[in-house]
Amino acid sequence: MTAAQGLADSAFLKAARGEAVPHTPVWFMRQAGRSLPEYLKVREGVGMLESCLDADLTTEITLQPVRRYGVDAAIFFSDIVLPLKAVGVDLDIKPGVGPVVARPVRTLADVEAIPDLTPDAVPTITRAVRQLVAELAGINGGTPLIGFAGAPFTVASYLVEGGPSKEHALTKAMMFGAPDVWDALMRKIAGISAAFLEVQVAAGASAVQLFDSWAGALTPGDYATHVMPHSADVLARVGTLGVPRIHFGVGTTNLLTLMGEAGADVVGIDWRTPLADGIARVGGPEGHCVQGNLDPTLVFAPTEVMLARAGEIIEAGRSARGHIFNLGHGVIPSTDPDQLKRLTEFVQAYPV
Amino acid sequence: MTAAQGLADSAFLKAARGEAVPHTPVWFMRQAGRSLPEYLKVREGVGMLESCLDADLTTEITLQPVRRYGVDAAIFFSDIVLPLKAVGVDLDIKPGVGPVVARPVRTLADVEAIPDLTPDAVPTITRAVRQLVAELAGINGGTPLIGFAGAPFTVASYLVEGGPSKEHALTKAMMFGAPDVWDALMRKIAGISAAFLEVQVAAGASAVQLFDSWAGALTPGDYATHVMPHSADVLARVGTLGVPRIHFGVGTTNLLTLMGEAGADVVGIDWRTPLADGIARVGGPEGHCVQGNLDPTLVFAPTEVMLARAGEIIEAGRSARGHIFNLGHGVIPSTDPDQLKRLTEFVQAYPV
Repeated sequence: MTAAQGLADSAFLKAARGEAVPHTPVWFMRQAGRSLPEYLKVREGVGMLESCLDADLTTEITLQPVRRYGVDAAIFFSDIVLPLKAVGVDLDIKPGVGPVVARPVRTLADVEAIPDLTPDAVPTITRAVRQLVAELAGINGGTPLIGFAGAPFTVASYLVEGGPSKEHALTKAMMFGAPDVWDALMRKIAGISAAFLEVQVAAGASAVQLFDSWAGALTPGDYATHVMPHSADVLARVGTLGVPRIHFGVGTTNLLTLMGEAGADVVGIDWRTPLADGIARVGGPEGHCVQGNLDPTLVFAPTEVMLARAGEIIEAGRSARGHIFNLGHGVIPSTDPDQLKRLTEFVQAYPV
Repeated sequence: MTAAQGLADSAFLKAARGEAVPHTPVWFMRQAGRSLPEYLKVREGVGMLESCLDADLTTEITLQPVRRYGVDAAIFFSDIVLPLKAVGVDLDIKPGVGPVVARPVRTLADVEAIPDLTPDAVPTITRAVRQLVAELAGINGGTPLIGFAGAPFTVASYLVEGGPSKEHALTKAMMFGAPDVWDALMRKIAGISAAFLEVQVAAGASAVQLFDSWAGALTPGDYATHVMPHSADVLARVGTLGVPRIHFGVGTTNLLTLMGEAGADVVGIDWRTPLADGIARVGGPEGHCVQGNLDPTLVFAPTEVMLARAGEIIEAGRSARGHIFNLGHGVIPSTDPDQLKRLTEFVQAYPV
């Protein structure tokens, strides 16, 4: 069997296309990260952005959870602000804080000063993806790689606030009060996000996930008017490449329908929305596929409690066009990897 | 007109009872707080807990936004952890951090070590409420005071995590894995919260709001099983006192029906849920009254944009049994008080 055949048969890609699966596929958002001792070891003394720009380190980190858990997909290890760094925005990721932008974006001139992303700005990304795809072809008969990018609203929040924000007050103030600046900023970021995903797909990624972590802070009306068109632009550009597109945010109960309509093949659902409700919101069995949605804190429950919940989610997922099992948000750093190992085995062994 | 008559005619209390109102009543969560220069002035050099335990200061701070805005209700200035401090739990509120508990609660013995709340533990609360009620009787023909308490889940999270938490991982681990400890903790806090509200109502508060700020982190199933019965106990105890009970949380789209069923007269709705959807979830015109729900960042928009949104919310509120206008969450500290003044006047002048 060739690698391409292996990938075509992958449970993850079949589920993402709404095809019959050999088992319910499973991977975990933030599976490559702080919860793994092998990750903490390779990151010793290495900054976050540095590790995202070192092709060998990115490759190693992305592979670690695939080796450990045997999950059905790898997620490219990166950060939402990495493409901004690559085009020259002065920012850093501070441990315990998050991304910090030296000169927050406030004016049209600030937006215009941000260069577009071209593949030559991210040569280590291309190299890392190529290495990964070659390695992953030999793991479990071929494990697909999911490309990674932040969605325009979430990236805009970092640029406008200058760092992580609970309320996104300055970001929304721009959205409400300076629509021309807002529109320019969102177009700029949409172009960068799309280009960043194109680079990854061109180098061999089999799918992409667009992370709109903060979109849940918006009303459906504001999302539809000010944000969705730009996320739709990103998804449309990636759609021409023929890979499945996953669209995810947190606290998005009221946005799920729109996030599907934005052009997603798979809508990621956080744990707050019961999966059956989420499936109904994205169109039921004839609608979009879904991904999710075990409460990430259930890994701290006794194993039998966690697995019972996972079983309920798999059962609920049967009414979707396709279902990829995942947590409802990223792996919490204090998670015991052995619990995720047991969870992976449980999901993959569950009768389809 | 006596003060009691003034209160009986208050737009706020009429709306909370589902009666016809002279105008849509409006107040703002966290209206007494960091956004007001007069607040910052009286708090200079005074710690948060200290200001909550000084009857004269609490009175002054609670009155400040009533004087400035002419809102239809005062909210008792306090903190969710104040009753814990009053019964002797070793905690402090650290500026820029929030409540920090010296010895987090992990065992049944930890729970049992927390004393119950009796009125003699909070004499300054009784005095502050009495002073406030006397003062408020003379403002705008009688302005009602809303009593304040945290709901068991939110208070439990501070006690178990030892401070503010994004993921409530330890709290949920206890909920999932140590149901006896969890149940004892929730009963303990429910008793304290109910007693804290009873003290305020006994001293003259005309309504109460139970704040379950973090409940939105729960699935509807976990909320119904592990949390709702305890919040219902608090609301039932206060219900015997005959004052309207408001029940509020953030990110609660999927919990609104349950939060109403827990025994609320009014369900507070954050801005993420379109008000019409929220009203449907709490039973429509025959169901519970609602409170909300302008996105608190809309105060940073141009005034005409903010007021247009407020108008839409008032219009949507017409299909509820009763509607109290509010923001969808607390006032953001950087809010311009002049915008809230314009918003108050707009809501109160809007045709009913």
